Amino acid sequence: MIIPLERRGSRPVFRQIVDYLRRNIESGRLPAGTKLRPIRLLASDLGVNRETVADAYRELETLGLTQSGVGRGTFVLGTASGAETSSETAAPELRPFVPVLSRAAEATLALPAIDYGTEAQAVRFERAVPDPSLYPVDEFRKACSHVLRHGGRALLDYGDPRGHEGLRRLLVERLTAVGIEAEPDGVVLTAGSTQALALVTRVFCDPGDAVVVEEPTYAGACAAFAALGVRPVAVPIRRDGLDLDALDTRLGRGGARLLYTMPSFHNPTGITTTLEHRRRLLEITARHGVPVLEDDFEKDMRVRGRPVPPLKALDRTGQVVYVGTFSKTLFPGVRIGWIVGPPRVAGAALVLKRATDLASSVPLQAAVAHFCHTGAYDRHLRRVAKELARRLDRAAAALEAHLPDGSSFTRPDGGFAVWVTLPADIDTVTLLTEAKRAGVVYSPGAIFYTDGRRSSSLRLSIGQAGADDIERGVRTLCDAAHALLPSGGGRERGAGRAAPAVHV
Amino acid sequence: MIIPLERRGSRPVFRQIVDYLRRNIESGRLPAGTKLRPIRLLASDLGVNRETVADAYRELETLGLTQSGVGRGTFVLGTASGAETSSETAAPELRPFVPVLSRAAEATLALPAIDYGTEAQAVRFERAVPDPSLYPVDEFRKACSHVLRHGGRALLDYGDPRGHEGLRRLLVERLTAVGIEAEPDGVVLTAGSTQALALVTRVFCDPGDAVVVEEPTYAGACAAFAALGVRPVAVPIRRDGLDLDALDTRLGRGGARLLYTMPSFHNPTGITTTLEHRRRLLEITARHGVPVLEDDFEKDMRVRGRPVPPLKALDRTGQVVYVGTFSKTLFPGVRIGWIVGPPRVAGAALVLKRATDLASSVPLQAAVAHFCHTGAYDRHLRRVAKELARRLDRAAAALEAHLPDGSSFTRPDGGFAVWVTLPADIDTVTLLTEAKRAGVVYSPGAIFYTDGRRSSSLRLSIGQAGADDIERGVRTLCDAAHALLPSGGGRERGAGRAAPAVHV
Repeated sequence: MIIPLERRGSRPVFRQIVDYLRRNIESGRLPAGTKLRPIRLLASDLGVNRETVADAYRELETLGLTQSGVGRGTFVLGTASGAETSSETAAPELRPFVPVLSRAAEATLALPAIDYGTEAQAVRFERAVPDPSLYPVDEFRKACSHVLRHGGRALLDYGDPRGHEGLRRLLVERLTAVGIEAEPDGVVLTAGSTQALALVTRVFCDPGDAVVVEEPTYAGACAAFAALGVRPVAVPIRRDGLDLDALDTRLGRGGARLLYTMPSFHNPTGITTTLEHRRRLLEITARHGVPVLEDDFEKDMRVRGRPVPPLKALDRTGQVVYVGTFSKTLFPGVRIGWIVGPPRVAGAALVLKRATDLASSVPLQAAVAHFCHTGAYDRHLRRVAKELARRLDRAAAALEAHLPDGSSFTRPDGGFAVWVTLPADIDTVTLLTEAKRAGVVYSPGAIFYTDGRRSSSLRLSIGQAGADDIERGVRTLCDAAHALLPSGGGRERGAGRAAPAVHV
Repeated sequence: MIIPLERRGSRPVFRQIVDYLRRNIESGRLPAGTKLRPIRLLASDLGVNRETVADAYRELETLGLTQSGVGRGTFVLGTASGAETSSETAAPELRPFVPVLSRAAEATLALPAIDYGTEAQAVRFERAVPDPSLYPVDEFRKACSHVLRHGGRALLDYGDPRGHEGLRRLLVERLTAVGIEAEPDGVVLTAGSTQALALVTRVFCDPGDAVVVEEPTYAGACAAFAALGVRPVAVPIRRDGLDLDALDTRLGRGGARLLYTMPSFHNPTGITTTLEHRRRLLEITARHGVPVLEDDFEKDMRVRGRPVPPLKALDRTGQVVYVGTFSKTLFPGVRIGWIVGPPRVAGAALVLKRATDLASSVPLQAAVAHFCHTGAYDRHLRRVAKELARRLDRAAAALEAHLPDGSSFTRPDGGFAVWVTLPADIDTVTLLTEAKRAGVVYSPGAIFYTDGRRSSSLRLSIGQAGADDIERGVRTLCDAAHALLPSGGGRERGAGRAAPAVHV
């Protein structure tokens, strides 16, 4: 018999044994008539003194739960309530319960999952997550300690449901610098940008409603839509971003409640749209009266080139809801994202959040605010940008050197994602099996399409691989791709000089 | 003109001014022809050197964004893209965007809100939240520091979507001690029990589905149901807990997808049901095939009497999903709750959580696990139980002394909630206005009913008021109640001797 004991806790072992057995007797798991394990054996099982067990057995007898006879052992008497009998009578009814799940739960469970394997040696291009070796752990630990020391009591209460005021104020300042006008009260802090986009979706969409998405698009957004019972409707991305004529046509057909878009360092393609593209997008959505959910998940991750103002900064009608996150620039474990929207939208997101998780954790929000105030965040961003630039350059060089003829790839100015399109013969889901065997994993294009279509594209995320690993990983990947091509063809290397090119 | 400057940051002020103005010019918020504020005035506005502003203006001119003439000032040129013109043409389309919200958002926004006021001097009986003066802040800060120092890098990554393994393991041990069998993999950590109950609801219910609730019940649960589009169907609570005959009848009519129940220290009544009541409840729900959501939000808050095993410990069919939280026993700001369910249910809750917020924050989970392992949590619980017992006793004594004739109140063995029922003449929403004026606030009964009915009951939560404040608050409240009663009647005091009594 195994009784879990907390040896470092302060509850006496004797008490723990009594409580455990009492509860199991009361719950009927040890029914009347059960013989308890002999004292000497239980003491040995648990590695405790025999007298401790004997004491516990005596206590159970005092409680009227057991009966002992010398030389016979200790037997369960059952409970006084007589409920044993009634549950005996009810026994024929006791079929194991088979849960009937909601349609939303079934749809979410049915989402395809890719097996990326777990080989530690593999070069991992599949996670759009920053590199833990770059985390400023010590500085952040000090920030945590600082905020808990000065004002911990208030931070550990619920606090403002919108989240820590200092962090909201800081975000407003930083957003002002990119041309976004906001008030701290118009900011709602969330558990990462995933929760932010789920909340904004819930603000505008009931189950069955349609959301227009760029295609390819962030697979996580489609998971959120499935969980919320919302239908994604795809409009393709071209070389310069969302196909605006197709968008105009689609919105003209009506029924779309929201447009979900990532104008900067788009996931998975890495594309950043121009100022003109953004203005035209807003003109189209304003004309059709469709709100825009702008996911600027990789803000602060530009490594070269001039920033383009976010849609939210160009918004003159109040139609854009802006979401962002610290998950890519700092670390995902703090789970801090945000929503910036017009008052009515931010207000609705807030009540929905309160109703379904009350609030996010304030202490870490306060720690991040302090971390930013000390300048540590900007120092960290500069350090990361330098490393990201090195990795993006290394990826581009390796792809250029090793990709088969007829391939292309994007050259983003920041973020983690490089979108690689191989010759049309190659299905990147099939290729993944070979690549995994050879020691490299990536995200196949199919997962970024709402219909999971066959795709010769793939996403390399350079967040978690160092420059040398990138070189090695790309070479391995390209070798695997060459091996899949018709023999004789494609052994020549060197392709992909075409800058941003997306095949959809 | 106000340009928000980060003075402690490392970005030069000159660069911040250039960036701010450039973005405002590019976004069209400073349209072509705008005269920029004279150098000397802007320097004075911002409290910076004139030369800094002059440098910034020169840079803008170099970028082709402005033009200066000696003695005339600096004017915005607009952007090169020509988009200004196109947005001019589109101007007639620029109506302010009026958001059309989802039905769920509208329903959640429409939930009634009580104004409890914010007077610092008032005795606050309305928040079912622990007392910040009891928070073990220093020990928790040390736990945070410890876990970030040893393994911070891993904690700041996403980690296991179910939450920190050490904390799940610890919960399993603690739950075993109350007779619940679980595996760490069957536990999903959530953002408090509010998220836990929202997730379990989503596992079983699509919008429009019905959930059976006890009435009165936790108002927050009804907010979650509203946000999820789920219909609460009320079955009354009697003196000894949920009316089981009414439950049997209601489930017999079909259509209910879930029963939501709080068998221990029920919110708002404080009632704890007996072992026999629990067994019969499970027999009924098993017979009808309806899963049970057991909210054991105040586990670990018993101050006297013998614990009764949770429904989950008595569950022989796998129909009970158990949720709990550290919000009441430790502090709400950590936002840690949990779901313990059969594999398929826990699995569905997990995918729904992943799809809509990816994961909860792991560092605080790790800190709580460490805090528990050191024995600090159990020490804290003992300290809190002693204080709670004192408060509950003080509340009972004061109610006994001051309540008008014909009143009653419950005497819970733990938790925060005391349910007080005043003479039927009194509407506790009306009384609240008087009470607030006199310096005491509480939760009127109406908010705990799905139909918001008139109620002469109210909930006193003694979580945040010290013993002396409780005495004073109860006296003030009773005076206000006396004043509302027909003159002559009710001035005699001393009532409520009847132990647990609930009028519904």
